[in-house]
Amino acid sequence: MLGTIFLHEIAGTAVLTLLGCGVVANVLLNKTNGNGSDGIVIFFGWGLAVFCAVYVAFDTGAHINPAVTLGLLVGPATEYAPGIPINVATTAAYFTAEIIGAWLGAVVCYLAYKKHYDDTEDASSILATFSTGPAIPSYGWNLVTEIIGTFVLIFVIIMFGHTPSGLGPLAVALLVVSIGASLGGPTGYAINPARDLGPRIAHALLPIKHKGTSNWSYAWVPILGPAIGSVLAGLAAYVY
Amino acid sequence: MLGTIFLHEIAGTAVLTLLGCGVVANVLLNKTNGNGSDGIVIFFGWGLAVFCAVYVAFDTGAHINPAVTLGLLVGPATEYAPGIPINVATTAAYFTAEIIGAWLGAVVCYLAYKKHYDDTEDASSILATFSTGPAIPSYGWNLVTEIIGTFVLIFVIIMFGHTPSGLGPLAVALLVVSIGASLGGPTGYAINPARDLGPRIAHALLPIKHKGTSNWSYAWVPILGPAIGSVLAGLAAYVY
Amino acid sequence: MLGTIFLHEIAGTAVLTLLGCGVVANVLLNKTNGNGSDGIVIFFGWGLAVFCAVYVAFDTGAHINPAVTLGLLVGPATEYAPGIPINVATTAAYFTAEIIGAWLGAVVCYLAYKKHYDDTEDASSILATFSTGPAIPSYGWNLVTEIIGTFVLIFVIIMFGHTPSGLGPLAVALLVVSIGASLGGPTGYAINPARDLGPRIAHALLPIKHKGTSNWSYAWVPILGPAIGSVLAGLAAYVY
Amino acid sequence: MLGTIFLHEIAGTAVLTLLGCGVVANVLLNKTNGNGSDGIVIFFGWGLAVFCAVYVAFDTGAHINPAVTLGLLVGPATEYAPGIPINVATTAAYFTAEIIGAWLGAVVCYLAYKKHYDDTEDASSILATFSTGPAIPSYGWNLVTEIIGTFVLIFVIIMFGHTPSGLGPLAVALLVVSIGASLGGPTGYAINPARDLGPRIAHALLPIKHKGTSNWSYAWVPILGPAIGSVLAGLAAYVY
Repeated sequence: MLGTIFLHEIAGTAVLTLLGCGVVANVLLNKTNGNGSDGIVIFFGWGLAVFCAVYVAFDTGAHINPAVTLGLLVGPATEYAPGIPINVATTAAYFTAEIIGAWLGAVVCYLAYKKHYDDTEDASSILATFSTGPAIPSYGWNLVTEIIGTFVLIFVIIMFGHTPSGLGPLAVALLVVSIGASLGGPTGYAINPARDLGPRIAHALLPIKHKGTSNWSYAWVPILGPAIGSVLAGLAAYVY
Repeated sequence: MLGTIFLHEIAGTAVLTLLGCGVVANVLLNKTNGNGSDGIVIFFGWGLAVFCAVYVAFDTGAHINPAVTLGLLVGPATEYAPGIPINVATTAAYFTAEIIGAWLGAVVCYLAYKKHYDDTEDASSILATFSTGPAIPSYGWNLVTEIIGTFVLIFVIIMFGHTPSGLGPLAVALLVVSIGASLGGPTGYAINPARDLGPRIAHALLPIKHKGTSNWSYAWVPILGPAIGSVLAGLAAYVY
Repeated sequence: MLGTIFLHEIAGTAVLTLLGCGVVANVLLNKTNGNGSDGIVIFFGWGLAVFCAVYVAFDTGAHINPAVTLGLLVGPATEYAPGIPINVATTAAYFTAEIIGAWLGAVVCYLAYKKHYDDTEDASSILATFSTGPAIPSYGWNLVTEIIGTFVLIFVIIMFGHTPSGLGPLAVALLVVSIGASLGGPTGYAINPARDLGPRIAHALLPIKHKGTSNWSYAWVPILGPAIGSVLAGLAAYVY
Repeated sequence: MLGTIFLHEIAGTAVLTLLGCGVVANVLLNKTNGNGSDGIVIFFGWGLAVFCAVYVAFDTGAHINPAVTLGLLVGPATEYAPGIPINVATTAAYFTAEIIGAWLGAVVCYLAYKKHYDDTEDASSILATFSTGPAIPSYGWNLVTEIIGTFVLIFVIIMFGHTPSGLGPLAVALLVVSIGASLGGPTGYAINPARDLGPRIAHALLPIKHKGTSNWSYAWVPILGPAIGSVLAGLAAYVY
């Protein structure tokens, strides 16, 4: 069972960051077809990255996000997915697989956009295709924004379980489009520690021509914020 | 039962205005990632805010809008939601919860965008992230626009009940995208008295740095217009 | 039964042109919130106008377009909608109701945008919020474009009947988004004689401040083109 | 059965390139209504082209792409579609029909935009409405991008079969929107050898006024890349 978790969550989270980092690369890197596209491309791009990733990781509940794993751990759910119990081993497997997958997807994205990375000299644009960062740096308020965004993500995902519709993975995709458009303004909506940490490690390790700092001093915000937000959402599910 | 209405309609309407005011904040406030994005972001942002809010308030019929409550009250429906009768107490509970929730969502949105509110000096942009206002002020014609928009909203929602599809909350979300794109030009499509009044109260009370007037002289238009539109739609449902 | 056809097709087609003309008004008229929005707003605006209109006219098969009626008349279908036979009286009722509804929706749209019509001096923008026109005038090639667009519309609608999905009215809405984005470039994709003729009559009759010609010399193209396209699609359905 | 494959795959692939090349024509050719629209129009335009095409080719499994046929041939599937076995004759029928259909759609697109092709003098814009090309020419890296994009396409399509939802053809449409937005930056996401080759042949043969080279030296990349990507995805399906 741990092997299943590893395989599916690595593959799913890799598809997530491949397509998610990819849409930012398409909009920000030099000479791409999508260079300078409107924000709507980013919001739908990340939302549909989730859409595809959920299909790939469907058998293990498609967490593809440690905040989802944590929300289920804290909340009233009794399984991580049909047949997968909540315990220390499965939790560790999810967390590890999610970070590895997120790293892998960013590496593949780098390969897909290799010539455009070579051609782009703006180090902050390059970093933005990997990890999130604050539009106005402020550890406290940036944390607040990530807490709020992740709370909405996890709380509404829990609500999906109570409401019948035939949308399948499209529901969570549209939820992520919504959070991006509505709450992504200040911090770029990590709302997923793996989505930020995995690509940041990739940025640090890859031999990117014009790269600058990986901004590690900010890296704890998109980990702690989503962690707090998901715990709060898991707790809220008990009283709702 | 009144407690259920309060809890679900407050939470749902709070999610509505958190995400709805949030998308306007992302587009209008200084230095956000979404600053200056195209109108499509606003239209999908509000529509998907409804999408998420409907899941959160599903158990109480997801009114999240006094115009919906009023349309059901006037129209041929026999319940507000499965198991929730139409009477004075439930009606008052819906109205109150919707306004409280709409106020709460705007407050949380302010916290999510705190640094960007501080950085924005244009008072009319700040107000626009809370409440609606007329592109060309004219009480009479602004009222007409809100009546037409709300009539379409409530009438089509009633039609949803007659037509099978597997879309669930997505149907009303797309309806709101449509009304925003098509009828939002003159007044910013309140089509929901709580969505306008709750955030306007928040705007008046919050200690926003560069805020100006809360434009109370216009506040009755997005209350009366949606009220008239929903009554007309409820009546139209009898003869259709 | 004729009364049912009249009521539902008038209401549905009115919602179609109210929301469809409305989105063009939002993008083109002076001082609207949506002024100058990207083309994607137009494409989704018209597509979602169809989405809403189909719910409103669901009981009569939601033709809301004489090309749909004609395609069903020519093609292998045996009814216009469940319980509505194909004969001279029902055909005439559909055609008449569609044109009246399309006219009515454009009039209501004018009321919703009254102050913005007053404020707009460009006569060609004003006409564009009512009826279609050629980007490069050429009766022959404009006709070809309308034939191709309508053929795709009617042929794919007929295919919907062979393919199960839970999308309901969303399928035809997305089809219209697609045709607008892909084939709307040369003529503004009337693909519906009523959608063009009804609003053109409204344009001719309404006391719009700065209006110019209603361009009647072009009016036959968006009637004949869709007629030919729908007949071809109806015939193609026999051999497919 | 071969006749059925031919008819449906030609029609489906023709609708694909008619609408797909059409959206590029709308954005790039002179004087169209959609001229200069945002990238989101291209991404949704191609995605919804797939949406419509899948309905048209539904009876034969809606391959409309030799990479899909190849992925099924290599992967664990036992049929190309319900009732259609995998053998040399059916494989050849799919490949041939897909290329003929893709050519046909591009020709019809040319007719729909005839006056705008005549009016456009930029030869590279004209070619871009037919075939893909590299934003930064590099055979090796362009091939890598096409391999990655096609792998995601075919692998996620295979995953669709494991996951219930009521989306029908919308799922693959959204997958294509996603790949376009996220991985289309460097090469314009052929991810379909027929989609590139058929229109390139049309470009070479049609008497377009201001056309330049058909760039045959690049033509093997959008054939070999998708071929490799689909084989890898088919193989990955065995170990997943």
